[in-house]
Amino acid sequence: MTTVPALSVNERSATLVARMVGNAQELRIGVSRGELGETLIDAGSKNPGSIAAGIRIAEICMGGLGQVELLPSLATPRWPWSVIVRSSNPAIACLASQYAGWRLADETPEKSFFALGSGPARALARREPLFEDLRYIDKAACGTLVIESGLPPPTKIVATVAQHCRIKPENLTIIFAPTQSLAGCTQIVARVLEVALHKAHELGFSPERIIDGMGAAPLCPPHPDFITAMGRTNDAIIFAGQVQLYVTGPANEARVLAEKLPSKASRDYGRPFSEMFRQVKGDFYAIDPMLFSPAKITVIALETGETFQSGEIDLELLNASFT
Amino acid sequence: MTTVPALSVNERSATLVARMVGNAQELRIGVSRGELGETLIDAGSKNPGSIAAGIRIAEICMGGLGQVELLPSLATPRWPWSVIVRSSNPAIACLASQYAGWRLADETPEKSFFALGSGPARALARREPLFEDLRYIDKAACGTLVIESGLPPPTKIVATVAQHCRIKPENLTIIFAPTQSLAGCTQIVARVLEVALHKAHELGFSPERIIDGMGAAPLCPPHPDFITAMGRTNDAIIFAGQVQLYVTGPANEARVLAEKLPSKASRDYGRPFSEMFRQVKGDFYAIDPMLFSPAKITVIALETGETFQSGEIDLELLNASFT
Amino acid sequence: MTTVPALSVNERSATLVARMVGNAQELRIGVSRGELGETLIDAGSKNPGSIAAGIRIAEICMGGLGQVELLPSLATPRWPWSVIVRSSNPAIACLASQYAGWRLADETPEKSFFALGSGPARALARREPLFEDLRYIDKAACGTLVIESGLPPPTKIVATVAQHCRIKPENLTIIFAPTQSLAGCTQIVARVLEVALHKAHELGFSPERIIDGMGAAPLCPPHPDFITAMGRTNDAIIFAGQVQLYVTGPANEARVLAEKLPSKASRDYGRPFSEMFRQVKGDFYAIDPMLFSPAKITVIALETGETFQSGEIDLELLNASFT
Repeated sequence: MTTVPALSVNERSATLVARMVGNAQELRIGVSRGELGETLIDAGSKNPGSIAAGIRIAEICMGGLGQVELLPSLATPRWPWSVIVRSSNPAIACLASQYAGWRLADETPEKSFFALGSGPARALARREPLFEDLRYIDKAACGTLVIESGLPPPTKIVATVAQHCRIKPENLTIIFAPTQSLAGCTQIVARVLEVALHKAHELGFSPERIIDGMGAAPLCPPHPDFITAMGRTNDAIIFAGQVQLYVTGPANEARVLAEKLPSKASRDYGRPFSEMFRQVKGDFYAIDPMLFSPAKITVIALETGETFQSGEIDLELLNASFT
Repeated sequence: MTTVPALSVNERSATLVARMVGNAQELRIGVSRGELGETLIDAGSKNPGSIAAGIRIAEICMGGLGQVELLPSLATPRWPWSVIVRSSNPAIACLASQYAGWRLADETPEKSFFALGSGPARALARREPLFEDLRYIDKAACGTLVIESGLPPPTKIVATVAQHCRIKPENLTIIFAPTQSLAGCTQIVARVLEVALHKAHELGFSPERIIDGMGAAPLCPPHPDFITAMGRTNDAIIFAGQVQLYVTGPANEARVLAEKLPSKASRDYGRPFSEMFRQVKGDFYAIDPMLFSPAKITVIALETGETFQSGEIDLELLNASFT
Repeated sequence: MTTVPALSVNERSATLVARMVGNAQELRIGVSRGELGETLIDAGSKNPGSIAAGIRIAEICMGGLGQVELLPSLATPRWPWSVIVRSSNPAIACLASQYAGWRLADETPEKSFFALGSGPARALARREPLFEDLRYIDKAACGTLVIESGLPPPTKIVATVAQHCRIKPENLTIIFAPTQSLAGCTQIVARVLEVALHKAHELGFSPERIIDGMGAAPLCPPHPDFITAMGRTNDAIIFAGQVQLYVTGPANEARVLAEKLPSKASRDYGRPFSEMFRQVKGDFYAIDPMLFSPAKITVIALETGETFQSGEIDLELLNASFT
């Protein structure tokens, strides 16, 4: 038996990061070093960034275990380009790596900072309760973190991240791009598959039973206002995202998963996200977490070969959000 | 004139195989050595395999002369992901390499084995009558064979294969995955273009006149039962496969080819394959060989610039097969 | 700040050219040296070429700053395969590199030659007035020029091209393929995004305000007659091309751009190009230059997050052209 190399999402991403840095000018990103020697990649703040950068960031977020493409689609005729995502390791790629679940907060009064970290560095640090249900652990000498923000994190947070990841700060890469940027909105819409895995986990379905998957959602037009921009990225998935999952275990559980997974199964389904978010005054916790999932779900039960499908694309609500 | 390197489907595949082995953990495949030193890749038997592995196997089967992708498609709305195949060397990629035409049988009573070998090693051995009509010969020191099976071939067959390929067994790679597996069904549906070339040959149309081509067919849900699984992979192509061929020579022959090529031109068209197969008690030879072809065909006659189209996707029969 | 390497469309293309030469047999192209030592790539004249070669040429034409793919599309059901193009540097990729704007004429009576050069070498020579409005300048020791022609340019023109590019002839690559060939028609249809940028420039909209973009158009069947073949490549874009542009600056200018950009805004819209071309006896200048643009346009104003859309695919006229 040939020994196979260990699957390191951070090592895989490091290759993609190096390629991204090598193509910095093409991608219109800025590459610099922070105070602790960390690599900072600005993909949409002082540097304009690009859709191509967003696709690269999405693949880095998935730890190099997913393919991301941008292609025309007739599923949403007024919004003719869709982000396509595929992974044969969805639990690792989406939950252990891509999910934006690492709270990074510095509450020092004069320079408060808050962001949710995503990407492979999370699988080194494993700070979130979610990791209790994921067997995957990465060990690597380098790490990459992605944040939806117009600013890089303050030095204090960089130091903490490196420490929790057990790596030297000079081996840490932080990629940042605000939601309003081209790269930002592209990499967020590319979370269409991740969102399905996350909700499956919330519903009590073990992510490790989801052994293959793919998704698609329309690329939203970016918006200069943060809440509107965020609303559009969410709505791209909630109103028009499509996901297909291959699951092991009892087929009847696959059937139930398909029924519960679509966004329209949420009590809060029915209007653009930004409108709702403004109404609850920015209190995320007032919004049903079951809303965050793709519009249309296909679940294939490998046990029986059955396919369960539920939900549908809602062009009217999508148009309301995107215009 | 610069000398161009010879086109070796086995050398090209060797590069792809090496990459596949390097990504074994990601692809969830097992890599081991057999008794004669041959490399054995289990892509869906004891190892679960993956859709990603199936795409790689399909590209290896085509001798590195074809591109295979998995993308969403509205052509078959209930089965929203399609396998896309393209080759600018369809006769070599599909017939000299990908076609599952090499009978590998060991009739030793206690351990009988039967499988149809596909992939580039066939172009080294050239054991099948089909090669009488293909000028392509590969010469390489290594070879790769793909088999639809849950078991690797017995040592006796491995020895025979290596001998017919005129290579050392340690330079032979055998990839196996059962039809019921994710990788198995993916790589079989990726035969949509090959099936068109094979039927064209059966109809007396020289494959070497087909100089470019592409195809698409919905990825079927795998099924744990062999016959049902096999039926679905066939029906994906028969009821919903689409192929476009560019042909040289007389345009009126291109027109006739387009008319005869679609599956519905067969007397046996009209019900799911597994149903028919069970009725004839597994006797393949009782089924019209003209059934095995894509549903919809486009043939472009380069001589005149004319396009001939025939056949159509049959969603009803596809649903009957896939559910 | 890490220094980023300069963005050289010719250096990027040189890598793609080397790969193309390495795959000459697969692509069915011929590679030779001309009298001055220039590399000549015949992709559809004495060598048959291929669709795969056309895709490679399109990416080379875009200076390695664009992705080109061939995928099935339901947008034009009778012509089911579309060329997809994407660039996050559209002004450089499409106008400074891909646009066929360099007049190459040798009026020596006995061996007259005329062709329009496209590709990255244009950005070295910068001979066209268009470059007055493009800040991009390439500096490289090698260059690549693409011409739509069945013949390589005469030595006199090769010498002039090398001289204007300030490179040695032995560092110049010239790729040629006639419009009637598979590679020719593929790489021309891949100009769908470029055509939109070019018309935007003609309309007075600065190309540098278009910071990201993508396009799609059906791959036309090639035709042995030059005028018919050329007509089909134009009509693929004029009747069925779709483009999406991301623009900076005043949103009201983006709205006006979206209204004026589609082909149907031209007075000459309404019949197959070859018919019109024959009527004006091949006098290009008698045809409204505003005709040359995609059928359907989406413009996203980054300033306000608004999307402006205009035009539509015209299946009837497309069928008239392609049959």
